[in-house]
Amino acid sequence: MHLNTSICEVDNPDLTEEREKGTFDTDKMAAVIYGSEKLARRRREISEAVSKIPELADTQPFPFMDRLEKITEGSRKLEVLNNNIRDIIDYDDNGERLHIYQEVTGMEGHPLALHEVMFIPALVSQASKEQQEKWLGRARRREIIGCYAQTEMGHGTNLRKLETTATYFPDTQEFVLNTPTTTALKWWPGALGKSSNYAVVVVDMIIKGKSYGPHPFMVQLRDEKTHIPLKGIVVGDIGPKMSFNGGDNGFLGFDKFRVPRTNLLMRHVRVEADGTYVKPPHAKVNHSAMVHVRSHMATGQGALLAQALIIAVRYSAVRRQGFLENKTQEVKVLDYQTQQHRLFPSLARAYAFIFTGFETIHLYSQLLKDVDMGNTSGMADLHALTSGLKSVVTHQTGEGIEQARMACGGHGYSMASYISEIYGIAIGGCTYEGENMVMLLQLARYLVKSVELIKSGEAKKLGPMVSYLAAKGGHPDLSSLNGYVTAFEHMARRQAWKATEKFLKLMESGESREIAWNKSTVELTRASRLHTRLFIIEAFMRRVSRIEDIPVKEVLTDLLHLHVNYELLDVATYALEFMSSTQLDYIRDQLYLYLEKIRPSAVSLVDSFQISDMQLRSVLGRRDGNVYENLFKWAKSSPLNKSDVLPSVDKYLMPMMEKAKL
Amino acid sequence: MHLNTSICEVDNPDLTEEREKGTFDTDKMAAVIYGSEKLARRRREISEAVSKIPELADTQPFPFMDRLEKITEGSRKLEVLNNNIRDIIDYDDNGERLHIYQEVTGMEGHPLALHEVMFIPALVSQASKEQQEKWLGRARRREIIGCYAQTEMGHGTNLRKLETTATYFPDTQEFVLNTPTTTALKWWPGALGKSSNYAVVVVDMIIKGKSYGPHPFMVQLRDEKTHIPLKGIVVGDIGPKMSFNGGDNGFLGFDKFRVPRTNLLMRHVRVEADGTYVKPPHAKVNHSAMVHVRSHMATGQGALLAQALIIAVRYSAVRRQGFLENKTQEVKVLDYQTQQHRLFPSLARAYAFIFTGFETIHLYSQLLKDVDMGNTSGMADLHALTSGLKSVVTHQTGEGIEQARMACGGHGYSMASYISEIYGIAIGGCTYEGENMVMLLQLARYLVKSVELIKSGEAKKLGPMVSYLAAKGGHPDLSSLNGYVTAFEHMARRQAWKATEKFLKLMESGESREIAWNKSTVELTRASRLHTRLFIIEAFMRRVSRIEDIPVKEVLTDLLHLHVNYELLDVATYALEFMSSTQLDYIRDQLYLYLEKIRPSAVSLVDSFQISDMQLRSVLGRRDGNVYENLFKWAKSSPLNKSDVLPSVDKYLMPMMEKAKL
Repeated sequence: MHLNTSICEVDNPDLTEEREKGTFDTDKMAAVIYGSEKLARRRREISEAVSKIPELADTQPFPFMDRLEKITEGSRKLEVLNNNIRDIIDYDDNGERLHIYQEVTGMEGHPLALHEVMFIPALVSQASKEQQEKWLGRARRREIIGCYAQTEMGHGTNLRKLETTATYFPDTQEFVLNTPTTTALKWWPGALGKSSNYAVVVVDMIIKGKSYGPHPFMVQLRDEKTHIPLKGIVVGDIGPKMSFNGGDNGFLGFDKFRVPRTNLLMRHVRVEADGTYVKPPHAKVNHSAMVHVRSHMATGQGALLAQALIIAVRYSAVRRQGFLENKTQEVKVLDYQTQQHRLFPSLARAYAFIFTGFETIHLYSQLLKDVDMGNTSGMADLHALTSGLKSVVTHQTGEGIEQARMACGGHGYSMASYISEIYGIAIGGCTYEGENMVMLLQLARYLVKSVELIKSGEAKKLGPMVSYLAAKGGHPDLSSLNGYVTAFEHMARRQAWKATEKFLKLMESGESREIAWNKSTVELTRASRLHTRLFIIEAFMRRVSRIEDIPVKEVLTDLLHLHVNYELLDVATYALEFMSSTQLDYIRDQLYLYLEKIRPSAVSLVDSFQISDMQLRSVLGRRDGNVYENLFKWAKSSPLNKSDVLPSVDKYLMPMMEKAKL
Repeated sequence: MHLNTSICEVDNPDLTEEREKGTFDTDKMAAVIYGSEKLARRRREISEAVSKIPELADTQPFPFMDRLEKITEGSRKLEVLNNNIRDIIDYDDNGERLHIYQEVTGMEGHPLALHEVMFIPALVSQASKEQQEKWLGRARRREIIGCYAQTEMGHGTNLRKLETTATYFPDTQEFVLNTPTTTALKWWPGALGKSSNYAVVVVDMIIKGKSYGPHPFMVQLRDEKTHIPLKGIVVGDIGPKMSFNGGDNGFLGFDKFRVPRTNLLMRHVRVEADGTYVKPPHAKVNHSAMVHVRSHMATGQGALLAQALIIAVRYSAVRRQGFLENKTQEVKVLDYQTQQHRLFPSLARAYAFIFTGFETIHLYSQLLKDVDMGNTSGMADLHALTSGLKSVVTHQTGEGIEQARMACGGHGYSMASYISEIYGIAIGGCTYEGENMVMLLQLARYLVKSVELIKSGEAKKLGPMVSYLAAKGGHPDLSSLNGYVTAFEHMARRQAWKATEKFLKLMESGESREIAWNKSTVELTRASRLHTRLFIIEAFMRRVSRIEDIPVKEVLTDLLHLHVNYELLDVATYALEFMSSTQLDYIRDQLYLYLEKIRPSAVSLVDSFQISDMQLRSVLGRRDGNVYENLFKWAKSSPLNKSDVLPSVDKYLMPMMEKAKL
């Protein structure tokens, strides 16, 4: 009985050899990753159950399908799942639902992608009780398919500039929805183009000539019987994208389209028959949905990074090239230091991101209780942090996935690796849910406010996550993990102060607030990144400190050491005049030492994510390591090989060659 | 008459406003970029001529096509071009041929992609005179289509491990080609899968039981009349890739396939009828082809980065979002410092890479003369440098393209931007023509040798490019560009020494050479990158110093200043204990200053690359800036919008919804 539970007899012996070296129980590691033994086990059970339903298998590899085929495949599986899903998962458990969708429909999108994560939640949080009675049941039973349409072609981040209008006409008690320009077209909403027949649409509400800003309306888009767009509705697909081509992101325009007054979602506001606008009794800033989404993004991105690393680490253990000391057999490429340096720091980050995401979600649910008690300071702290977290995590995830792909050499570039698709999926996260630069500057605003508090002697008002900004830093003692944290704190603090001072000085010198801010933004984003990376290190440390299983704790402690050394070296530019070159050399030596230490555990560390072959969809990353024969099989079954001679050869190339012979 | 020649009346006024600010003649800048007024003019003339032949236009946007459609489109255009090409370009001019192909067939590959750049050159350099008489004319007239097959599924970098064999049988005077295992399959060669009927195949030659290592053979793959693969040949397409899906990269296996003895390409070696192997009289290391290819890669990658920046900079001048001081109109996103910081340093690099590539090509042709005179030291210098150049340039190009894409926000993620395709094309360069880590270590070997020369008191034997390794460095004076070079030299020198010392110490401590090397490789790659980046800075400086036109020189001097400040800051980790934090602050201030200085010239700087809309293939990057209406047009014409209701909705989603209503 091996500690690594992935070992099977038919496997590539190069992988088995790695797994036999495992020093920890991969099931126990999975329990640490996913939060509990039960959650990890449920994942395995769901994967297992799915694998037993042949109709849920991919009809062909995703990279062989065009968009229409991908969408058809997704729709087919949704229908099959609809009949089985409640036998396999607890349908009300978001985690289980996410897992089964990722397993079955994959990550490239599907026609119900927004129905459960955006449309229904919008109705839950924004519709009045009567409205919920009318629509929520229908949506939950899937009598209707919905999405959430907010972003316009010309307007993303700046919501107040949305151009689509809903103008109220008291005589008919109707709103008239209108799209005045091309840039006003709703653009990008998922599942809007072809699938949804309803949408929650956010538009500028106008009553008696006065704009009330963005408000959500329930709008029917297509006939329920024929699925033909209603008169006055222009709707379609926005075309191919970098990834998510199994989804139908759409555009939507209104030509004086009328909806009843009661289609304004009225949980928080009300418009009465005569056009009277009734405000919510106490409007308060509500960041909770965003905090929630961004925390989950950290975990989700960590999981995407993990997938790329599963593929690259396993493949690097079966790919042999070149020689070290032994000249009779080529060496596994995983033995090269450069390969380890490409993969292992990202592996540490994948763990760190997942841990940080879960910790943030946990923190958030605790803070919700504080908010109920009237204490919102922790929430502001967390909201600011998650803006940075979203940005740092998505950026580093993208970097890590691409390095993983390149670590697979030429075959990484083949869609058989599937890594470039994972990259496309992950990297979208840099842009959606708040563009990364905007996010970093959101956090920066909070950091600047915090430094200003300290400067005005009100340090005690600081949120807990920024209290280090008021501390004094000495020279770092790198003999303990805490010394690394101190060093990181010092750099983050110095940069936050420096960027704030720059901004303040520019204002003092006569620049307007806006210009002073703009001229400080690059420095401010640097401060935000450091603050966030510090938090990730601390979250990683806290998680490891709570682990009880000794072998699991040991290997994660090594991974943590790798992480802090890599991170500190990566930002060492900020250590100028603060760390000595001897210290920096020490950090480098430690880094290389921990690469070697992780090497024997690398395969078990990626196995522990327990992503099934079905979900991974990668020939290079197969659990059994039998890469080459399956690469050949994959290629032979690809669309171009259906015939020996392509029609285009017959039509163009053969005549060209024949003509040349004359 | 404006200095920017791109201005037209129908353009988006936001772009015209930018162009009217231009301080230099964009035609003159183009002459500097492409090497001469004539070369720049020829590019314009070719683009113009192509635009007048309607059959050469894309039948639909590339992102709407599947692979078969892309290959068909490429084949169709090749046939059209075949009739016109000699009227438009000087067919023997490689530059003009490359330009017209990029214009017409685009960059995603086509069925003749390897015919002219690999197959014919292989015949020219490796075939004997008699063999050339037999095949070269046929190839040039396109009676046959060929490719070059070397890489195997299991073997890329390490050529000596190629498994495919050609075993000689003197009785029939034939070689028998054989593929003993799956990993021995030829895998990846361009145009091999479906298009080529001939190939130069590199295999391990075996005579009388003895292996002679890799040798090139001319092999017919398919029947010339039917295009059906010959008996004993297994050939096909390797399936979809991250990009280049208009090309048919292929696999090739031999089942005891016989070719005449005289199909061994015999320009440099000979096998006689009885199997006697005749070696070339004086085998010498010949790096010239690689130097050539890698220098051109620097220029080519620079051009790809330029394309992404054309798109992002133009779009950033028409995209408006948020406010600065003026609250009545949203600001062009190009006015945000964070946006400038994302784009302008990459713009400087695009110029730097193109200049460096051309300088390297020039240097190479000069050195060829030295080689003829028996002096090869300069060539070793240059060969080492180009290994690093290839690696640094491809990596930074990829980074820059992705930042450009993200700078376009959500629409950058749409294939309408085309940037993600440009990324896919460019990033392949990190892997092909020598994997980047392998390349950096090739250069590192040269750097280590150079340091060892200095240590043994033979500094005078150093090649010119590494002579700075023997110099002493003082504290940098950043008041001139030369001071920046001195600072960079110091860092590169320090790292080269440090990495070498590490390697030597490990050997002294008892490690084998191989292990000591492996344990030093990450540090060694850092040294290689610094050496290369230093060279790029110097090449950029030399190029600018030679410019005669004052306005062009002024703006490129600004771009150069931006470049050196950005580069120095980027590697400031190596400046520990050598630069003060005051100096670093100065560098940062300079960086932000030059971002502002470049801002008014940004659009003219990208216009100067003079890439036509046809070649750019980007809705966001259109010369006229009329982005939004064309984005809508593009989306409406995309394949999913051919019908209002997708078949998959009818088949799966409608029944699901109907069933729910029961």
